[in-house]
Amino acid sequence: MPNRTRIWAEVDYEKDGKQVAWLHLHHSVTRSAYGNIMIPVAVIKNGKGPSVMLTAGNHGDEYEGQIALCNFIREIDPGQIQGRIVVLPALNMPAALNGTRVSPLDQGNLNRLFPGDPDGTPTQQIAYYVDSVLLPMVEYWHDYHAGGSSLAYLPFASMRQSEDKRLNDRTMTALKAFGAPIGLVWQTSIDSRQSLGAGIRRDVVTLGGEFGGTGDVTIEGVRIIERGLRRELAHLGVMTAAPGETPAPATRLMEVRNKSYYVYAPEPGLFEPFTELSDNVKAGQPCGQVHFVDNPAREPVPCHFKTDGMVICKRHFGRVERGDCVVHLATDWKG
Amino acid sequence: MPNRTRIWAEVDYEKDGKQVAWLHLHHSVTRSAYGNIMIPVAVIKNGKGPSVMLTAGNHGDEYEGQIALCNFIREIDPGQIQGRIVVLPALNMPAALNGTRVSPLDQGNLNRLFPGDPDGTPTQQIAYYVDSVLLPMVEYWHDYHAGGSSLAYLPFASMRQSEDKRLNDRTMTALKAFGAPIGLVWQTSIDSRQSLGAGIRRDVVTLGGEFGGTGDVTIEGVRIIERGLRRELAHLGVMTAAPGETPAPATRLMEVRNKSYYVYAPEPGLFEPFTELSDNVKAGQPCGQVHFVDNPAREPVPCHFKTDGMVICKRHFGRVERGDCVVHLATDWKG
Amino acid sequence: MPNRTRIWAEVDYEKDGKQVAWLHLHHSVTRSAYGNIMIPVAVIKNGKGPSVMLTAGNHGDEYEGQIALCNFIREIDPGQIQGRIVVLPALNMPAALNGTRVSPLDQGNLNRLFPGDPDGTPTQQIAYYVDSVLLPMVEYWHDYHAGGSSLAYLPFASMRQSEDKRLNDRTMTALKAFGAPIGLVWQTSIDSRQSLGAGIRRDVVTLGGEFGGTGDVTIEGVRIIERGLRRELAHLGVMTAAPGETPAPATRLMEVRNKSYYVYAPEPGLFEPFTELSDNVKAGQPCGQVHFVDNPAREPVPCHFKTDGMVICKRHFGRVERGDCVVHLATDWKG
Amino acid sequence: MPNRTRIWAEVDYEKDGKQVAWLHLHHSVTRSAYGNIMIPVAVIKNGKGPSVMLTAGNHGDEYEGQIALCNFIREIDPGQIQGRIVVLPALNMPAALNGTRVSPLDQGNLNRLFPGDPDGTPTQQIAYYVDSVLLPMVEYWHDYHAGGSSLAYLPFASMRQSEDKRLNDRTMTALKAFGAPIGLVWQTSIDSRQSLGAGIRRDVVTLGGEFGGTGDVTIEGVRIIERGLRRELAHLGVMTAAPGETPAPATRLMEVRNKSYYVYAPEPGLFEPFTELSDNVKAGQPCGQVHFVDNPAREPVPCHFKTDGMVICKRHFGRVERGDCVVHLATDWKG
Amino acid sequence: MPNRTRIWAEVDYEKDGKQVAWLHLHHSVTRSAYGNIMIPVAVIKNGKGPSVMLTAGNHGDEYEGQIALCNFIREIDPGQIQGRIVVLPALNMPAALNGTRVSPLDQGNLNRLFPGDPDGTPTQQIAYYVDSVLLPMVEYWHDYHAGGSSLAYLPFASMRQSEDKRLNDRTMTALKAFGAPIGLVWQTSIDSRQSLGAGIRRDVVTLGGEFGGTGDVTIEGVRIIERGLRRELAHLGVMTAAPGETPAPATRLMEVRNKSYYVYAPEPGLFEPFTELSDNVKAGQPCGQVHFVDNPAREPVPCHFKTDGMVICKRHFGRVERGDCVVHLATDWKG
Amino acid sequence: MPNRTRIWAEVDYEKDGKQVAWLHLHHSVTRSAYGNIMIPVAVIKNGKGPSVMLTAGNHGDEYEGQIALCNFIREIDPGQIQGRIVVLPALNMPAALNGTRVSPLDQGNLNRLFPGDPDGTPTQQIAYYVDSVLLPMVEYWHDYHAGGSSLAYLPFASMRQSEDKRLNDRTMTALKAFGAPIGLVWQTSIDSRQSLGAGIRRDVVTLGGEFGGTGDVTIEGVRIIERGLRRELAHLGVMTAAPGETPAPATRLMEVRNKSYYVYAPEPGLFEPFTELSDNVKAGQPCGQVHFVDNPAREPVPCHFKTDGMVICKRHFGRVERGDCVVHLATDWKG
Repeated sequence: MPNRTRIWAEVDYEKDGKQVAWLHLHHSVTRSAYGNIMIPVAVIKNGKGPSVMLTAGNHGDEYEGQIALCNFIREIDPGQIQGRIVVLPALNMPAALNGTRVSPLDQGNLNRLFPGDPDGTPTQQIAYYVDSVLLPMVEYWHDYHAGGSSLAYLPFASMRQSEDKRLNDRTMTALKAFGAPIGLVWQTSIDSRQSLGAGIRRDVVTLGGEFGGTGDVTIEGVRIIERGLRRELAHLGVMTAAPGETPAPATRLMEVRNKSYYVYAPEPGLFEPFTELSDNVKAGQPCGQVHFVDNPAREPVPCHFKTDGMVICKRHFGRVERGDCVVHLATDWKG
Repeated sequence: MPNRTRIWAEVDYEKDGKQVAWLHLHHSVTRSAYGNIMIPVAVIKNGKGPSVMLTAGNHGDEYEGQIALCNFIREIDPGQIQGRIVVLPALNMPAALNGTRVSPLDQGNLNRLFPGDPDGTPTQQIAYYVDSVLLPMVEYWHDYHAGGSSLAYLPFASMRQSEDKRLNDRTMTALKAFGAPIGLVWQTSIDSRQSLGAGIRRDVVTLGGEFGGTGDVTIEGVRIIERGLRRELAHLGVMTAAPGETPAPATRLMEVRNKSYYVYAPEPGLFEPFTELSDNVKAGQPCGQVHFVDNPAREPVPCHFKTDGMVICKRHFGRVERGDCVVHLATDWKG
Repeated sequence: MPNRTRIWAEVDYEKDGKQVAWLHLHHSVTRSAYGNIMIPVAVIKNGKGPSVMLTAGNHGDEYEGQIALCNFIREIDPGQIQGRIVVLPALNMPAALNGTRVSPLDQGNLNRLFPGDPDGTPTQQIAYYVDSVLLPMVEYWHDYHAGGSSLAYLPFASMRQSEDKRLNDRTMTALKAFGAPIGLVWQTSIDSRQSLGAGIRRDVVTLGGEFGGTGDVTIEGVRIIERGLRRELAHLGVMTAAPGETPAPATRLMEVRNKSYYVYAPEPGLFEPFTELSDNVKAGQPCGQVHFVDNPAREPVPCHFKTDGMVICKRHFGRVERGDCVVHLATDWKG
Repeated sequence: MPNRTRIWAEVDYEKDGKQVAWLHLHHSVTRSAYGNIMIPVAVIKNGKGPSVMLTAGNHGDEYEGQIALCNFIREIDPGQIQGRIVVLPALNMPAALNGTRVSPLDQGNLNRLFPGDPDGTPTQQIAYYVDSVLLPMVEYWHDYHAGGSSLAYLPFASMRQSEDKRLNDRTMTALKAFGAPIGLVWQTSIDSRQSLGAGIRRDVVTLGGEFGGTGDVTIEGVRIIERGLRRELAHLGVMTAAPGETPAPATRLMEVRNKSYYVYAPEPGLFEPFTELSDNVKAGQPCGQVHFVDNPAREPVPCHFKTDGMVICKRHFGRVERGDCVVHLATDWKG
Repeated sequence: MPNRTRIWAEVDYEKDGKQVAWLHLHHSVTRSAYGNIMIPVAVIKNGKGPSVMLTAGNHGDEYEGQIALCNFIREIDPGQIQGRIVVLPALNMPAALNGTRVSPLDQGNLNRLFPGDPDGTPTQQIAYYVDSVLLPMVEYWHDYHAGGSSLAYLPFASMRQSEDKRLNDRTMTALKAFGAPIGLVWQTSIDSRQSLGAGIRRDVVTLGGEFGGTGDVTIEGVRIIERGLRRELAHLGVMTAAPGETPAPATRLMEVRNKSYYVYAPEPGLFEPFTELSDNVKAGQPCGQVHFVDNPAREPVPCHFKTDGMVICKRHFGRVERGDCVVHLATDWKG
Repeated sequence: MPNRTRIWAEVDYEKDGKQVAWLHLHHSVTRSAYGNIMIPVAVIKNGKGPSVMLTAGNHGDEYEGQIALCNFIREIDPGQIQGRIVVLPALNMPAALNGTRVSPLDQGNLNRLFPGDPDGTPTQQIAYYVDSVLLPMVEYWHDYHAGGSSLAYLPFASMRQSEDKRLNDRTMTALKAFGAPIGLVWQTSIDSRQSLGAGIRRDVVTLGGEFGGTGDVTIEGVRIIERGLRRELAHLGVMTAAPGETPAPATRLMEVRNKSYYVYAPEPGLFEPFTELSDNVKAGQPCGQVHFVDNPAREPVPCHFKTDGMVICKRHFGRVERGDCVVHLATDWKG
């Protein structure tokens, strides 16, 4: 069956050199009958070598990867590489310009929509293009995330384990090569429609990672990506390591094993946390409490940790609805 | 002229004991013809002594004060005090429940609306009530802020200088008694319609302060307020210092002298900061740059510091419009 | 000072005969640079006699008066009257077309905006026109209401007492002449900016009344207005009583004396009422309770009557916010 | 094929005792990356016996069932029953909290979305969970409705006839056991995607019913459900009849046979009805007329009944669009 | 498989005479539980002859066809025709009443949604009804467009070429018979889900055309449709040519061959065009430039034509987003 | 009284040379606590000579002046002038970026808000700054308009007559010097709060004019402004006429005398016009008619001209509300 995408690219993925241009996603609306959502894409290609895809802005309010990839696109010279690098620094473009996790056009969360739909909403069309056009073109994909406006994360790179041991091994090697302070292995999967799942289904070595969060731009997060990016390209043989480049620092391998690692707000209200990022906690320990500022005489309602672990993620915004994740933990990887 | 407020209180401000109830702000709309915006208020009164007003939630997305005051209301026993404490932990109630700086009902920024209007929007009516009913009742007002969703602040208590030297001296003494790590004196005033200006016009010792920011709840900010609150009440003679209470830590006095302390985004886009909170910077030093993720080939546009100082405030959200304040500085107080 | 209204009328208020046309309220917006809000107005005039104003649609979601007045406009023949009748069946036109209490253009509640503002929002401009152009033209004004979407009322006509005894007496006589089942005297005033207050300030005999409610069209309410309208015009000498017309039925005079007649929702949630319209209740008796359907294990929170009386008004919609009036009472008039 | 729902339950459906907790519907949005829509669910189980599902809040603005089931959850003791009762008092939770028929998240009308979609919108995911997880677990389902904000109904319980005579007989017996004043048999089906159709497809005895309407909470409707609920549980053998419990009152069986029972608004405008609930009408008789308050000189446009019958349902809101159902009729059941 | 549409028609398509009525599209929402979107339809039938469908309002903001078809419906007498004419003057009714390209209910662009979905959004349901109920009924379909609010067009009738030469020939003959000044053949297809594609898949002779644009009503466009409509009905043998009717004027056949005929805005901003409709341009010639009024010191960014041709379409609105089509060209048909 | 504006300018109005920068209008909202609306301003000054203000974007969807002034700012060299030119190419900046007549922040129509309010909405604050800071600085103001999205205009320059004959004469001379094809004198004033009225109150020679409309950018309109601008600056002595510059073409002086020049839509619906711009019409002649596409059997409702004249303005959008101006006329100036 021919690919059914309606998106077309201004770039030629097979051409050597550096092209920086756009994908056209036809979007016919009242303000523009022949309008297009223009998704920036860069192709840097030189000779033979692996094909690599680097993406950011899968969630629009995660910025460190967007900045690192924009810098990379401007700075990279095709002569520095062997192979092909496809870079999409603002994958869900309408969300990235809007500074929101989801697209303002269709409320679509791109990272819950793979493998997408060529006839669907704009966000579904982007997912379909990545899944059916780009993934078959590459051997390696790193999708840089940052937790989004609502979460603060200790920065880490991440992978998911598939049923294919060889793919897992190659992915673990890449995870270590990237050299983030923490390397997280997701043993529980929130949703198979995320990028990590999509890559696995296409047999592509796929890394993720959360490099900041809260809707902020962290200097540290940008730096981790920029350094890791060069190391992973060197590891793949697409670039040669810069002279004098120090080896990747050791990565602490951790994992999220199951639902008990997550704590949820027990009531709607204003959440007061009791722990900080990187705190080690015990099952049963209080995690925080919900206040009722419209009725200050009402007692706050507490919630507790269900397992031991380290606080790797905290909710950012003070106001909560019942069921919002307020903390999740990680523990050292058991291999 | 009689007070023209249309707001009425369930509490009796002259009654001894602890009352926790609501102000009724009549709000007649389609979903409720005889509806009310219910603003929580607590009055704790015992014998003779000064009258003090404590407020939070002037901006709805500033939470440390809201939590500290809710805790205070539940914990305080009238027998512990001499005088009267009026506490409004969620002053702009609709904004506080909405988790936004401004009211969702009228887009009103309460801290730009004093002295208010009894016939105006809900936010203007709240300002009028504070200004015309509550301020004449008290000698001391502390309005706890936190920077709001869009700003990260080093925590500090603050005051503004008036033309009345005696009022300034009393306010400076109170500022030191509160014992925040930093005590900021605003030499330049963004707007005379803020709470600090309103208090001065009513000859009330008035403190402010930013105890966190970014829409988060910081454990440190809650703690600074909770400790400072007891110290200021002791200073005023409303409470006696707790036995074993350590003296107020030294406060570093700083100031914001003029417009040159502020740096604004030079273009709309994605802002990458180059400095962290508490960094000391020099005039002419790069402050950050704006990226264009929809057009990654376009060079980022930088902005620079216009004076020397310490970074006391940074913009939180990555996305900026031209003219958003991205950093402001403070320098040590010159007295 | 000349009248500063920017509204102009297609009708000539001094011309004999029947004119049905519009007021032009200039409203210059993106979809229409030279647009107008067109407020329907009818003038029926013949010879000499009193000038009377009849209005409905002050609140857009109160329909019985709108229907009765539209029918009246089409049916009335100028030869049947002596004097002048000015009829505005949809006073806050944008609200009436939108089926909402307040205007969709400016969220204005017309009955909280008298005497209005000629340079203000559309709703303020309407208020100004009524107050400054129409009220000085008439001796009598009946403004037919119905409680609006959020309230169910036992139907009644109403008046407010002013400090002018003569005006009060004339108004009471008119109230009885109208012949509603209940005649309500407001001893407490929610807001002086209502039509009843505006009429008093202009020394005009002014009646109101709630003839239904809940956003419904009640057959009974339309009938009460249609019959009462003819009786009040006969009473004023503008029409002669129809041959065979039965005399006005006796009106039970009641009153609302103070704030204690109102019961408010104690929490946000789903309100279950315990009483029906026309029930007689006692102070302390339970009025209803608020349920929490998102958390069914939580106990409902009750509220109680604060005084004795008859239930004349109940909240209609099940969902409540804290502070919504859920019931108000009336008691027999003490004169 | 394994069940593909992404919803997980905090309750264990196989455990004896009473559990009151929530379903987690993962909803990842900007304000909460790891958020959940929390749908309240109670499981009351004891020993062996039939499995029964009771639901309300399928439409968010239908309240009598929500209240009756919240009361039931708090009051029931597992020792009182034999079997299992699964109770969801607010099935379309976001709609129930919003007081609207449809979900504010996706505009989904849950009762037009069975059998749902595990990868769809939140409302589609709820429908899928009910259809694929809960319905296979039970033999009996009563889904309590109330007409919603836009309709007023004479209260009745209802069923639909399937092609399975045995299922029809069991359902008719249950309908009579419930003991509502009216028992309605839908001979015409607006939409096969409603709960009554979903139950039939799963071979579950399924009842519905409209117990009020107009967005109000009727005391009578709550009472009919509370009494009927105990009777149907006794009928099913899940509870024993309370001592002294009176037998079910006789139910008048009625039906809606075809499209001609419905009358629609002929124009957009303000609808004035000519009949009341429970009136008996004749084909050709005027049903009401549409007024044009923006143009009072225009003649109203009438509409007429197309068949004989009793008015069992009336539109509530005065404003209509062309095609809104303004009345529908029922006639006595012909068996 | 039986047709699964949920839409039902008040008209009988097989009945002789003229019927003007509505399609009922059930739309159950909070404001109307049993509401319907009422789509106007006229059936004019007399004796034997071809079946023809005429539609406008596929896009709600294209008006010339809506007016021409409303006039036609009122004026046509069944005795004037042989065969059947089905007329839908406002196909996407909610969009037509809203004056927008897409439906305000679901943001659906009807002309990107064929063949539709009977269980989908309102716009998808309309597409399904046209595709599965109406198209199988007719041999000929003319769907009159006008470019919509965002585009200005030189008026033309149009067709698309299919793989069926015979169908192409019949369509070309009809195109000439209609007699528009220009007859456009689309050699490149934006989207196979448009009406021209839907007609081809159903083996129906299908014409389109853009008869104005910019959201305006052009007198010339209405006239071209009204004259062409009579000529095409005469051509098909449904009407006889009016006595004295002049023959169809010659049509200039043109085509749009490929993507290079389109020019897109290179940046968001304010677009200044350099050419007018009907200008002949050369590849490389400047087409216009984007200004930045928020930053007037910034140089405008130009765009250029990529091929030779005549300007047949220009963007109307000054403000552009990157990727908006600002001009497209046509060239003479090469057959 | 000191000027109370809260806006501050980056430019120094007294400095020689060319400055292109921004006004800061403080706008403190949730997304930016210390945000600013940045209004572009250019000051070109050299030696002694008159002070002139040129503005566009008073209405955001009027573009010809915005483009002409942006071009002028970039092209002008201070050495070319004698005196001072203050240029604001996007006066209501938020509206200009939004492409709407009114501001998206407060729905403010700047040209109905002079003299503004320093404590009001953003649009009122802009009006106050223009009125109180800029107007006192200049002798001449040309405010370029274009009719906005909803109107199509024959291009003209315009003035209003004040009670000051000398000011009128100077203004008429300037009007002729500008050299537009038509020079319009407003004898009737829609609103005294427009720029023409504000200029007169400040004794400033003030011109307006509509140079296009419909939300389009007309090449002709840009050209008329660009040529006229140089001619008016030469006329004022700020620039010397370019060598070889042709004299101003003759201007046809016309006027709008009273309300009868305007025709309004008689019903809501779809308006079909019967005349084109520049047509000469007679009183009583049909102007157009309103169609009802939701009910095609209903007869269209016509409207007629009330006086003789030339069509100088037509409504652009097809959809109308009752009271929208659909045409207005002008007649030759009677002096």
